Amino acid sequence: MSTPTPGTLEYEGKAKTLFATDNPNQVIQRFKNDVTAFNGLRKEQFEGKGAINNLFSTTFFEYLEQHGIKTHFIKRLNETDMLVKRLRIIPVETVARNVVSGSLQKRTGLEEGSKLPYPIVETYLKSDSLNDPMLADVHIELLKLVDAEGLAIIKKLALEINDLLITKYLEAGLQLVDIKFEFGYDVDGNILLGDEISPDGSRLWDLETNQKFDKDVFRKEIGDLMEAYREVAKRLGLAA
Amino acid sequence: MSTPTPGTLEYEGKAKTLFATDNPNQVIQRFKNDVTAFNGLRKEQFEGKGAINNLFSTTFFEYLEQHGIKTHFIKRLNETDMLVKRLRIIPVETVARNVVSGSLQKRTGLEEGSKLPYPIVETYLKSDSLNDPMLADVHIELLKLVDAEGLAIIKKLALEINDLLITKYLEAGLQLVDIKFEFGYDVDGNILLGDEISPDGSRLWDLETNQKFDKDVFRKEIGDLMEAYREVAKRLGLAA
Repeated sequence: MSTPTPGTLEYEGKAKTLFATDNPNQVIQRFKNDVTAFNGLRKEQFEGKGAINNLFSTTFFEYLEQHGIKTHFIKRLNETDMLVKRLRIIPVETVARNVVSGSLQKRTGLEEGSKLPYPIVETYLKSDSLNDPMLADVHIELLKLVDAEGLAIIKKLALEINDLLITKYLEAGLQLVDIKFEFGYDVDGNILLGDEISPDGSRLWDLETNQKFDKDVFRKEIGDLMEAYREVAKRLGLAA
Repeated sequence: MSTPTPGTLEYEGKAKTLFATDNPNQVIQRFKNDVTAFNGLRKEQFEGKGAINNLFSTTFFEYLEQHGIKTHFIKRLNETDMLVKRLRIIPVETVARNVVSGSLQKRTGLEEGSKLPYPIVETYLKSDSLNDPMLADVHIELLKLVDAEGLAIIKKLALEINDLLITKYLEAGLQLVDIKFEFGYDVDGNILLGDEISPDGSRLWDLETNQKFDKDVFRKEIGDLMEAYREVAKRLGLAA
């Protein structure tokens, strides 16, 4: 079997690019060095950022697959690229939250950093032009973004994956504050975890000091993003 | 039975004031002439505004009671005051929507003015300091604002009341675009409709021209608010 090579550019996102392959059911997901915040208003490049997020995502997808979670991941191809199954992405961003931060703080008035009594799942519209607004079930139904069965599945999967990742990060002395997931349908109609699993889409705080090791370092300009990401990789035992 | 008179001021809201009465289970709800928008950032007074909203609310509460909806309304006392049952207000604003406008337009990208295929109900946190953010069920549960049974009841009631008001406004040549409700528990633990029913908390558009006859006239500074409210009263056959 020959190594898949990137064909036509299919999708250019803020942090990743998708390329076609010879197999219509498989695409190459390339991690870029770009980092954006505030819906793309601020944008920078960090050398090695694509590679480290490819490493994180490879590691976590493999870990999740080992624990029975179906993902789009097939294999890592090289430093910045992974081969994934082609998904029809559900345009709902699913966010699991364990600790109060960000928009949940603003929405509820609960204290920043307070631990939730149990993890919760929120849903957002995947729409740059509308600035990813939060949705209730009623909006998801109205916009026909996913049917009721699919919505129940992605909420359940978000909680299961969140639980598995909490454990993994705990071993690295990190608290998983919240994390965003994207799901999609494969060619057979199964719902798989797609996108990436990296500190770009999670909040990760040091268990003892609450120091931030995620994209908030960039958003809030409170340190060196690559240093933070490399520390996470090191704690996870990854050769970054 | 003597006419209840206002005792201690119990609550001063943006558009209404509540006074105690000799009966601990009853309070006087007084409609003020104040009109506010943008969470109180803009504020004006309009002569006769309290009186006309007392008239609207009296009319609608009586109409809803006749159609089997339990409300806090007991009786109209005078031009600006009504006697109501004391409620423990559920701090969730329930919004029924029939046509796309306002935040629903921004949230979904659906076209302003397009008719929804069916009415939907949204929930918001009643909190001036947090600017009344939208909540999903998961937040209502987390904040323990109302239990699951109560939440199901207020959503169902919101749809029933919305249906009844659609009919009433249709007879007046007006389209009920959306409307906000507040519910609360009475002393016996029943959930009743509280607050007010007036063009302050609804969007009302002329059936033919889409001309606005609600508080958007003030918010958007597109006309004379009292003229709009008096036209609604006239069309409803009320002696304003």
